[in-house]
Amino acid sequence: MTEVNSDPLWAAILQEAEQAARDEPLLASFLHMTVLRHSTLEDVLAFHLSSKLASPVMDARALLELFREAYAADHGIITAARADITACYERDPACDSYSTPLLYFKGFHAIQSQRITHWLWQQGRKTLAYFLQNRISEVMSADIHPAAKIGHGVMLDHGTGVVVGETAVIGNNVSMLHGVTLGGSGKERGDRHPKIGDGVMLGAGASVLGNIRVGECAKVGAGSVVLDDVPAHTTVAGVPAKVVAQLCPGTPALDMDQRV
Amino acid sequence: MTEVNSDPLWAAILQEAEQAARDEPLLASFLHMTVLRHSTLEDVLAFHLSSKLASPVMDARALLELFREAYAADHGIITAARADITACYERDPACDSYSTPLLYFKGFHAIQSQRITHWLWQQGRKTLAYFLQNRISEVMSADIHPAAKIGHGVMLDHGTGVVVGETAVIGNNVSMLHGVTLGGSGKERGDRHPKIGDGVMLGAGASVLGNIRVGECAKVGAGSVVLDDVPAHTTVAGVPAKVVAQLCPGTPALDMDQRV
Amino acid sequence: MTEVNSDPLWAAILQEAEQAARDEPLLASFLHMTVLRHSTLEDVLAFHLSSKLASPVMDARALLELFREAYAADHGIITAARADITACYERDPACDSYSTPLLYFKGFHAIQSQRITHWLWQQGRKTLAYFLQNRISEVMSADIHPAAKIGHGVMLDHGTGVVVGETAVIGNNVSMLHGVTLGGSGKERGDRHPKIGDGVMLGAGASVLGNIRVGECAKVGAGSVVLDDVPAHTTVAGVPAKVVAQLCPGTPALDMDQRV
Amino acid sequence: MTEVNSDPLWAAILQEAEQAARDEPLLASFLHMTVLRHSTLEDVLAFHLSSKLASPVMDARALLELFREAYAADHGIITAARADITACYERDPACDSYSTPLLYFKGFHAIQSQRITHWLWQQGRKTLAYFLQNRISEVMSADIHPAAKIGHGVMLDHGTGVVVGETAVIGNNVSMLHGVTLGGSGKERGDRHPKIGDGVMLGAGASVLGNIRVGECAKVGAGSVVLDDVPAHTTVAGVPAKVVAQLCPGTPALDMDQRV
Amino acid sequence: MTEVNSDPLWAAILQEAEQAARDEPLLASFLHMTVLRHSTLEDVLAFHLSSKLASPVMDARALLELFREAYAADHGIITAARADITACYERDPACDSYSTPLLYFKGFHAIQSQRITHWLWQQGRKTLAYFLQNRISEVMSADIHPAAKIGHGVMLDHGTGVVVGETAVIGNNVSMLHGVTLGGSGKERGDRHPKIGDGVMLGAGASVLGNIRVGECAKVGAGSVVLDDVPAHTTVAGVPAKVVAQLCPGTPALDMDQRV
Amino acid sequence: MTEVNSDPLWAAILQEAEQAARDEPLLASFLHMTVLRHSTLEDVLAFHLSSKLASPVMDARALLELFREAYAADHGIITAARADITACYERDPACDSYSTPLLYFKGFHAIQSQRITHWLWQQGRKTLAYFLQNRISEVMSADIHPAAKIGHGVMLDHGTGVVVGETAVIGNNVSMLHGVTLGGSGKERGDRHPKIGDGVMLGAGASVLGNIRVGECAKVGAGSVVLDDVPAHTTVAGVPAKVVAQLCPGTPALDMDQRV
Repeated sequence: MTEVNSDPLWAAILQEAEQAARDEPLLASFLHMTVLRHSTLEDVLAFHLSSKLASPVMDARALLELFREAYAADHGIITAARADITACYERDPACDSYSTPLLYFKGFHAIQSQRITHWLWQQGRKTLAYFLQNRISEVMSADIHPAAKIGHGVMLDHGTGVVVGETAVIGNNVSMLHGVTLGGSGKERGDRHPKIGDGVMLGAGASVLGNIRVGECAKVGAGSVVLDDVPAHTTVAGVPAKVVAQLCPGTPALDMDQRV
Repeated sequence: MTEVNSDPLWAAILQEAEQAARDEPLLASFLHMTVLRHSTLEDVLAFHLSSKLASPVMDARALLELFREAYAADHGIITAARADITACYERDPACDSYSTPLLYFKGFHAIQSQRITHWLWQQGRKTLAYFLQNRISEVMSADIHPAAKIGHGVMLDHGTGVVVGETAVIGNNVSMLHGVTLGGSGKERGDRHPKIGDGVMLGAGASVLGNIRVGECAKVGAGSVVLDDVPAHTTVAGVPAKVVAQLCPGTPALDMDQRV
Repeated sequence: MTEVNSDPLWAAILQEAEQAARDEPLLASFLHMTVLRHSTLEDVLAFHLSSKLASPVMDARALLELFREAYAADHGIITAARADITACYERDPACDSYSTPLLYFKGFHAIQSQRITHWLWQQGRKTLAYFLQNRISEVMSADIHPAAKIGHGVMLDHGTGVVVGETAVIGNNVSMLHGVTLGGSGKERGDRHPKIGDGVMLGAGASVLGNIRVGECAKVGAGSVVLDDVPAHTTVAGVPAKVVAQLCPGTPALDMDQRV
Repeated sequence: MTEVNSDPLWAAILQEAEQAARDEPLLASFLHMTVLRHSTLEDVLAFHLSSKLASPVMDARALLELFREAYAADHGIITAARADITACYERDPACDSYSTPLLYFKGFHAIQSQRITHWLWQQGRKTLAYFLQNRISEVMSADIHPAAKIGHGVMLDHGTGVVVGETAVIGNNVSMLHGVTLGGSGKERGDRHPKIGDGVMLGAGASVLGNIRVGECAKVGAGSVVLDDVPAHTTVAGVPAKVVAQLCPGTPALDMDQRV
Repeated sequence: MTEVNSDPLWAAILQEAEQAARDEPLLASFLHMTVLRHSTLEDVLAFHLSSKLASPVMDARALLELFREAYAADHGIITAARADITACYERDPACDSYSTPLLYFKGFHAIQSQRITHWLWQQGRKTLAYFLQNRISEVMSADIHPAAKIGHGVMLDHGTGVVVGETAVIGNNVSMLHGVTLGGSGKERGDRHPKIGDGVMLGAGASVLGNIRVGECAKVGAGSVVLDDVPAHTTVAGVPAKVVAQLCPGTPALDMDQRV
Repeated sequence: MTEVNSDPLWAAILQEAEQAARDEPLLASFLHMTVLRHSTLEDVLAFHLSSKLASPVMDARALLELFREAYAADHGIITAARADITACYERDPACDSYSTPLLYFKGFHAIQSQRITHWLWQQGRKTLAYFLQNRISEVMSADIHPAAKIGHGVMLDHGTGVVVGETAVIGNNVSMLHGVTLGGSGKERGDRHPKIGDGVMLGAGASVLGNIRVGECAKVGAGSVVLDDVPAHTTVAGVPAKVVAQLCPGTPALDMDQRV
């Protein structure tokens, strides 16, 4: 049993789930099975994700064990997950508790699931990673290649329609809305997908294509198509995207202003 | 048993389902369980949505009872659902029966499911509303905040990728295509999402961002990004969206012409 | 038992699945049930798609029999499926085996599922076709009308958010990315959706609207909105789309360069 | 919401379930879904039996509604169920709470399920009664004809292997152990099964065959085969059964001494 | 499509199922999926048994195909099944239609399932036969060794608790009640189980032990333990069983008088 | 990973399962998921039993973790299970491999499941023990009280209909056939069930009632009802049981001769 005193995030999640189970009888069953009977955040996450990704051809027990194995093998995964929860809590005005993204945000689930496929990829278990990528794409509508590198404190808001390619890199504290594409530049293998700097915000439906760099704290407007490097602290928008503001102060990923 | 004479929509749905069960043995099982053994439209809808939103962690029986409770408590929900069915029938040239949207249109299912999360939200049952919002987003790929206000006669065509924020308001007789975003203007709480007037058509992939107003019978072209108020009877298009036609007669939501 | 010597695609898939089952114990169960115990590609595909599209209201056994019936009745469906597998293998740099698209590419599954609804539509079994269209849209997030005509060698990459209308026609060797819309021009029935020529590439999130023609080997940039005919060997981009390159050599669908 | 003060059985069951949900996290989910979110005993029973008797070909929701319909139509069913719970509590030394038989005694579940098939039979819904008789026989291993008449305060201990024929009658406050047969006398239709008096105890594996009468407070030893009437307050045993004790005081069904 | 005129049993079953689907909306779904959409009795039986024997670790589709393969390979199985249906119809006064045993009699299902394990055994597929024997024992509570030989026109009434050993032989037109054991004589391999002649009736709970012969048209009373050969047309009863009647006319299996 | 060299039972099971997966494609899926991907016998048993005892109201993952917890906490459980497997292999002439009882013998599964409920009972987790006792009784048709004490090397052949009471004790190397009852003597609490000595064989359907002792290496004939102590090395039979042989050499449980 984790000492809840020493883990305020876990303590808050437990307390929120207990309150919700008391308030909402219809959720008590789900909350006990998924949260309250566990003693660590990683157990909750492993259980919850295995509920979502299991299917008649892939047993939930096998997935649960796999996810626990991943968390045990690479503590960085759960550290990143914690930062992602906090990111949602701090950046999304519609999110007023820590358990909300953990339990109910599809984009959060997609990112956490990819963190596991990424671990599998690193272990050389590529076929299993593809199998899960497919399930994530079916259940969470986000198709993120297992090889893509994703930093911590990332908020994938809503998640639907997101596509992230094999050689893409997403920095820390990035916010990506639904429908964002980090796509390739053609059929050649090798490094062909975007590199997204820390603190970047990618607006809804934005496409960033090719091995280009979106600099730190840049902002890409909704519906934009980015074909060239974007300097740091710059806002781009349009199809194709053009610079609309330079030397912008602040961190767009934290402000979450989708307007440009 | 409802008097079918006094309810022509229900009578039509029953007759269509009976015909389909006779014509297509493979659907007879589904149609009897979902439609033919029931005696009101709300029972069919409650059963059908609970089939779709149930999961190994949320029993279909509990959802069915919840949905029936919502319909019994707020008759307006089913009145709106009826108008939504008629809207699909009248506006979608590929829809030639009333039972087709009821049974097979994902966007219709997403709207009807949100009408229930909205009722839960109004009752203060926010956690359950979030739980269902997540399931709607997984199954129907539309992420509509439970607090959003949606009028009647709304057609959400296809539904995939739609995102509607917490303080958004959608008027009556609106048509929204897939990929439409009614997004926020940042991380401040409070009124921060669009207000869509009656009769508006929002084209595929259009993003409307911030607490702006899209006037009555306006039209937003596919792929547009709208950052400013749109006057009534006006067509806007582009990234960012600009006015391309003014004083347009007719109701774009009814004409469903996605071209601008 | 098919002679594997005379069917190199099937031989490769079997060999890949055997290797994967040996390498990854967690997938051995899935691979034996889905691939290794079968003796033809059509049996694998019928089994795999029925796993994905079954639900508590539609028995997997009934779907399996239906899909096998379709493959037996129209050999062209499986011929096209073979070309689609090869297309993924040749065009997608992240795809290094034939079994990967067959088993794990959601867009491929959506296309193959539509090939079956199309056969049902041709047989006059429209209600069943609608039922399955709905399931495909839920599971694979691609909403493709059963009446749409799709050529062979088509790659639907990722698949999420794709919408293809009733009278749309997609030629041979086309590549379509996620979020592509082939939409209608209004609520009149009749021929109202785009015709896409052979070898065309449609970038992520592109919308092509109305009964227009996109000529052979044309390319439509990501996020574009196409409202007019596009000549062959031409690249268009923007909202609305404009010509950005003419008389382009090569076949964009094969090159898969999403940049314009 | 039932006034728990006025219903001590329900109050006890609720209190026991709350305690168990607190003590045993693994059961909290089950107990909330099955007991704690309901407000009457009949709702609990309808939910619990529908969980057990549902199958891929018979939806739990349909069964739940049917069972609730039965309880609403015939209050005697739930009155008898209450007496059966109390009977288990009072007679079974291994049963120390009211919720134990309600939730965990297979014989109790078989009796309650038959009370519903009996109601269906009386309504003329014979095919549905047969369908459920089959499910009861599969799940609870007790094959009790829907037409059989069963009194109140009946304890069917363990339940496995019990067979009760069409024209059998079981009085009030009877105790029957597992493996008991109340069988017929041949293939003629008409009244051909035993009549069991009030307070009778039928030992494990006892067979009572033909339209004979087992008198009030009689006792049939384990493994006996009874082919003739048994007088009241008499103990019979053996194959075939012979009288081994007469004018026995007390009520064997309450004493539950299986020895003779 | 079978010519129903030339197959009166199938015609009767179809007509009964159609009538039941009309009369009982709750069963219409089950009846369409299980009976009405099929065109032969073997398809119905294969579908129905695969519904019952499938589990999360054995796909219903795989079982369905296996059972259809068995029926196609050995027509004798379905000929015997037809005789078994007729046997139930003629001998069981509580059975007034042909579809009742087919759909709802657990003992009938156990026999038909064993006929398939027996075919597997003959093909040398012993492990699969054991797998299914286990499922039959779980679902139908009858544990019949795949190697046991069973004639046609056999009625296994109720079925619960029946055990039939590896080298047992059951003749034609036998009636066996629940709880009957045809057991072995020790741990030596070889022929060690009973041989039951044509027309024999074995009463409820009767045990017949060792390589002994129960002669044609003999009758074994309920609860008896038979350790020696029983001559033809003889009735035995008791523990151990003794002859109670000789030279009995008639066929006990057809009369079904369980009394001795 | 267990050293298979040092664990011949596990090595044999693995080798048998590998051979079966190769020989029988239909079982390969089951065998990989249940056996081949695991590295210890306890993992296989925990997985297999959790497959069987899970239900829509009790998640297989939760059961798997519970069973693994039990095996880790009390190594004696798995030691006993190993002896039980060997007992089946040595005593049952129809059992020619170690994996057959492990995977396919319902009586073996019932015993192993009770060993877990017994551990729960000892831990004071009585409600969970009752919950599982009910599931064991439903799935395996054997109703064994969690408090009953069971030795090692016990073969519960077939298992159907077995009932074992709260204060019963079963020694080592006992063989019990289906339908055996170890029942109580009335409704008083306290020690009221039989004590079965080492090496005893209890024949099919035998009832042993009350706090009596069946001595070492005694044999109880099929269908017997035992009401008094049975001396060691004695054979009893009949209703009620009488001594039929004294000073019998050998161990009836190992000889498995059901005849007396």
